[in-house]
Amino acid sequence: MNTYGKQFRITTFGESHGAGIGVVIDGCPAGLHLDLDFIQHELDRRKPGQSKITTQRKEKDEFQILSGIFEGKTTGTPLTLMIWNEDAKSKDYAHIAEQFRPSHADYTYQQKYGVRDYRGGGRSSARETAARVASGAIAKLLLQPLGVQIYAYVSQVGKLKLEKAYQELDLSLTEDNIVRCPDQAVAQQMIALIDETRKKGDSIGGIVTGVIKGVPVGWGEPVFDKLHAELGKAMLSINAVKGFEYGSGFEGVQLYGSQHNDAFYTEEGKIKTRTNHSGGIQGGISNGADIYFNVAFKPVATLMRDQESINTKGEAVTVSGKGRHDPCVVPRAVPIVESMSALVLADFYLRNKASRMND
Amino acid sequence: MNTYGKQFRITTFGESHGAGIGVVIDGCPAGLHLDLDFIQHELDRRKPGQSKITTQRKEKDEFQILSGIFEGKTTGTPLTLMIWNEDAKSKDYAHIAEQFRPSHADYTYQQKYGVRDYRGGGRSSARETAARVASGAIAKLLLQPLGVQIYAYVSQVGKLKLEKAYQELDLSLTEDNIVRCPDQAVAQQMIALIDETRKKGDSIGGIVTGVIKGVPVGWGEPVFDKLHAELGKAMLSINAVKGFEYGSGFEGVQLYGSQHNDAFYTEEGKIKTRTNHSGGIQGGISNGADIYFNVAFKPVATLMRDQESINTKGEAVTVSGKGRHDPCVVPRAVPIVESMSALVLADFYLRNKASRMND
Amino acid sequence: MNTYGKQFRITTFGESHGAGIGVVIDGCPAGLHLDLDFIQHELDRRKPGQSKITTQRKEKDEFQILSGIFEGKTTGTPLTLMIWNEDAKSKDYAHIAEQFRPSHADYTYQQKYGVRDYRGGGRSSARETAARVASGAIAKLLLQPLGVQIYAYVSQVGKLKLEKAYQELDLSLTEDNIVRCPDQAVAQQMIALIDETRKKGDSIGGIVTGVIKGVPVGWGEPVFDKLHAELGKAMLSINAVKGFEYGSGFEGVQLYGSQHNDAFYTEEGKIKTRTNHSGGIQGGISNGADIYFNVAFKPVATLMRDQESINTKGEAVTVSGKGRHDPCVVPRAVPIVESMSALVLADFYLRNKASRMND
Amino acid sequence: MNTYGKQFRITTFGESHGAGIGVVIDGCPAGLHLDLDFIQHELDRRKPGQSKITTQRKEKDEFQILSGIFEGKTTGTPLTLMIWNEDAKSKDYAHIAEQFRPSHADYTYQQKYGVRDYRGGGRSSARETAARVASGAIAKLLLQPLGVQIYAYVSQVGKLKLEKAYQELDLSLTEDNIVRCPDQAVAQQMIALIDETRKKGDSIGGIVTGVIKGVPVGWGEPVFDKLHAELGKAMLSINAVKGFEYGSGFEGVQLYGSQHNDAFYTEEGKIKTRTNHSGGIQGGISNGADIYFNVAFKPVATLMRDQESINTKGEAVTVSGKGRHDPCVVPRAVPIVESMSALVLADFYLRNKASRMND
Repeated sequence: MNTYGKQFRITTFGESHGAGIGVVIDGCPAGLHLDLDFIQHELDRRKPGQSKITTQRKEKDEFQILSGIFEGKTTGTPLTLMIWNEDAKSKDYAHIAEQFRPSHADYTYQQKYGVRDYRGGGRSSARETAARVASGAIAKLLLQPLGVQIYAYVSQVGKLKLEKAYQELDLSLTEDNIVRCPDQAVAQQMIALIDETRKKGDSIGGIVTGVIKGVPVGWGEPVFDKLHAELGKAMLSINAVKGFEYGSGFEGVQLYGSQHNDAFYTEEGKIKTRTNHSGGIQGGISNGADIYFNVAFKPVATLMRDQESINTKGEAVTVSGKGRHDPCVVPRAVPIVESMSALVLADFYLRNKASRMND
Repeated sequence: MNTYGKQFRITTFGESHGAGIGVVIDGCPAGLHLDLDFIQHELDRRKPGQSKITTQRKEKDEFQILSGIFEGKTTGTPLTLMIWNEDAKSKDYAHIAEQFRPSHADYTYQQKYGVRDYRGGGRSSARETAARVASGAIAKLLLQPLGVQIYAYVSQVGKLKLEKAYQELDLSLTEDNIVRCPDQAVAQQMIALIDETRKKGDSIGGIVTGVIKGVPVGWGEPVFDKLHAELGKAMLSINAVKGFEYGSGFEGVQLYGSQHNDAFYTEEGKIKTRTNHSGGIQGGISNGADIYFNVAFKPVATLMRDQESINTKGEAVTVSGKGRHDPCVVPRAVPIVESMSALVLADFYLRNKASRMND
Repeated sequence: MNTYGKQFRITTFGESHGAGIGVVIDGCPAGLHLDLDFIQHELDRRKPGQSKITTQRKEKDEFQILSGIFEGKTTGTPLTLMIWNEDAKSKDYAHIAEQFRPSHADYTYQQKYGVRDYRGGGRSSARETAARVASGAIAKLLLQPLGVQIYAYVSQVGKLKLEKAYQELDLSLTEDNIVRCPDQAVAQQMIALIDETRKKGDSIGGIVTGVIKGVPVGWGEPVFDKLHAELGKAMLSINAVKGFEYGSGFEGVQLYGSQHNDAFYTEEGKIKTRTNHSGGIQGGISNGADIYFNVAFKPVATLMRDQESINTKGEAVTVSGKGRHDPCVVPRAVPIVESMSALVLADFYLRNKASRMND
Repeated sequence: MNTYGKQFRITTFGESHGAGIGVVIDGCPAGLHLDLDFIQHELDRRKPGQSKITTQRKEKDEFQILSGIFEGKTTGTPLTLMIWNEDAKSKDYAHIAEQFRPSHADYTYQQKYGVRDYRGGGRSSARETAARVASGAIAKLLLQPLGVQIYAYVSQVGKLKLEKAYQELDLSLTEDNIVRCPDQAVAQQMIALIDETRKKGDSIGGIVTGVIKGVPVGWGEPVFDKLHAELGKAMLSINAVKGFEYGSGFEGVQLYGSQHNDAFYTEEGKIKTRTNHSGGIQGGISNGADIYFNVAFKPVATLMRDQESINTKGEAVTVSGKGRHDPCVVPRAVPIVESMSALVLADFYLRNKASRMND
């Protein structure tokens, strides 16, 4: 279904070229002051057309609140945000109607549902992530007073990899460049690579790294709803994501347990670990250390090039590249990764309230 | 919560050293013949003590059906399976009661719940996966007549990596050796490495690769419950898992879209793709091609060595390695990865029944 | 939460005097032709101001579809309907802000949430039922081709009780009068009673009877989600409802089993029962006979009279009756009862698809 | 599905003549001391054979805890209770296998699932309520320290009606007689009526009244999950229940709003209402006043008499009354009504923890 979360629960709706994209948030506690400028600021970080290295679709991504707010605060009832589409009407989609674009969802939607809204990808368009960012902004507002800080940045574009670990970076510099990499030198290389890719009408993949500080001990659930399992699901549900790893990740499989185990010690009355291969999560539950993870994004499927494919009758056709395309999705994915992190954490924060007797 | 799935829904319960481990399956269609030997066979593939390279805990892992079966068939009512613990009574756990073992869930459970069953890890023990394998076996029985084939095998142990892709391997040979790697030569190296690690009282990580063939087009849901997002969550919920990637995965980020896109073509009236970087899933929905993925397992935390840690008062202590340990978890993880795959697919199979009008 | 249903799932949002009332429908099968006139027709049956015996609030209750439709059909993605508020702006609610009106939700919302949207009752207003009727209309469109027919009518107003059972009535005549009672003579008495009540600035209760024909055998679930348990919950969730009974209901407790049991027999190859005290449901599952039930509505709390109450400081105040009021809620409740019935049945229809193997 | 509750969630399993009846409780907070004697005491109040006016089936209904407890306390992990069947083996059910008993679930289960466990009704047997009482006992233990008091008693058997309201009764006397009516004189009449009914091999219906005191203001949710809607669903999910009403109920429809509205006033700093037609719930949320309701039970379908019916081929047969039967279900329903009340309230107690910011 189109719902994420158990206690802080979002349901998104809308299509790329319908009326707009929206989200209902159910379970947001009453009394939260909604900073509307902050929500818009977050949407602006995701919106198309913000720099030369992203898609040039024209959308202001302004939101309207349809329900759940009164005198600037949440009321405990469903909070609905709508982002109306502007750049939706004039297109001629006849050519897409009859074709299955390579590595898009055209074919699978058609087979599953027997009908599909082919205009700009319809429901499968990454435009749906605007709803995630809007609701993620509200989740951030909920988490902020608790001291939770959520960061994300681009750590790889194509083969260009930022070799420094997050601890060696100043994450406050991420927004200083259009590719959202906190190392300014590497950022310039990434920008050049994306720009060059764009000029070729091609696209390229990348990695977004997420870092969450200040999560108290105890969030997450044993067994299926482990904190990292939900983070993983949330990230994998973002368009174009192909992989997720946290803590020591795929590299960690090469280690011995004697290298990998994080030794506990006490410093100034606080329990800490000497290393953090666990990535801040043990047994599915936060242990108070930093949570960090990587999210792999494939190159987006829309190209400004001709590609071989088939039409809905199964006949060979050439899909021509026209319109606008996003040469690399990761810069705009940064606020999406942050938002999904915030949504996962807000949910566990509320779920944790019921975990023991003397609370 | 301790439940996975929406239509084919399992709820597991039990602790490492309580009465046993169990699972309630709700939503299994009526009329499924339960092949009890097959279920036991699957449990035997996961059980401890089956070879020299796994833990030597003594458990027969025999199951009892407590409900939901009549004259050998499911009745549409909840199916409950219980695997009683045998090796549970005689241990002295006083030493663990007072300590937080490194990279275990001791500390996080204690902080979250204020109380914990410290005997053998209690609920956080990987013994819980027996319930997953038992219910996964039933999911396999449900999927079998539909032509769905689920494979998993060990593709990496430590730095020892099987370089061949799954297409180059004969997956029917996986069970021919105790490490469950279908390449017999690499398997012997892996076994030697694990055995050596075991002798040092250490542990080592590894990767399990999953391959699913024969999934019809149309399983999976758009947006949050994408097929790969649920697969990812399911895998990440297995103890010791640190990462998940499918299709082109983390490597795929290095590609250009013009390399990565899977071109559609028609062959003998069937729609296919020339490559399969998509990993059998587009827009979150199966496209009929093979689904393949990797799951990264860290080295298990229990070592037969002394380790520095703290006790529940925060004082420095030495955690001594005694008892039995699992030098490498991946061989026994193979049936678990298969089981979680089956549980995810069984759920989507049933969910898909309601997707369109003329069904 | 603000969601009803598992497979055909609605989430409603909005307040009496906010932007409007809306609903997201998730799980509606793809390919359903949406008859927009029918949806509007249903909304018109519920809307305020349609006759002299209902509230005179001015709302056209026109809807807008925000998502999920393409070329007139559902696409399998979330369907969102919005009913914008018109009569919302000009009111002065300062007097309500400080008061707790008797038998309204003012006090409980304030205590639960610490904040409340007091304008017209906010979220607790029966205006929310517009969203139920809009989505119920779509559920009716889904059920229609299956032969399911849903009826509701007013069977009691105050002490005025329609003595005939539903079998003795021509249910096609229900809409022939403004009170929606299929017996035209009794209807006139009811209308007179309500009109008289209205003139006194008072309100009065009533009963709506529901009748559902053509439900196939097998809908509903054992144990908690019994068909009648969900019907009961759905009805009890409508504002002002105080009771629900089905089949023999409260009267049935006086019978002996030998009188109450419905004997099976076969007629022209069809299995039937000689009586239908079961109300078409046995063991929580439909048996193919008519489903019938009664829903009790209390007199609505808003009166055009002075009433004693307290303000938010706990001080005694007089709540004065001003504005508009609904002297009897049951005529407008008829389409709401039908809608909730349709929503319950649509959900069970889809859930039932997964109940057995050879489907 | 076989699950009730969102935060305090029970899943029941088992059949009348299988291994036993069980329940998994997920979401019970950690640190709750489990009074095992109290749980057994509650089960004893429901068990068959406890008096001459209930069924004489022989079951001790002793329970075993399979998971979730450590050193006498809950651990936050799933709590599983099993009540093994004893009186299950020796029966010959061949006659039932081929017949559809009148007003039982035989026919509907057969049609829905294509297979059914006919032994003693299988899953549709009221024996399932043992699992509700066991888990309800734990919910009571959770609620007790909060001051919540739950009462239920028999207020009607056949036409014999206890005319006094609950306020006029001493509810502590309910257990002083075998019919569980707190008015001893009426109780004797009820017992005589049931005994007489039993001798005729017949059964008779009745009403159980529930009263809940001490619920804090604020439990329950707006819209669909209203406190009384969940109570209604919970009660209607009990075998043989045909109706539910709360507060003024069906009688309340006859009143005018000016009679029905509950005027607020302040007494010694506490907000109260002069009347309580609302039944302690306004807008779906508890207001601190007593919650009271009635639950209608039909006469149970099993009779010690011959009845006309059909067999599975649709042919006319005589269902003969043999074995044991329950002449009136309401005495044993009293602890079940209490248990379902406790389960509903425990769930809302936990859900309410997440309702506002400054908690």
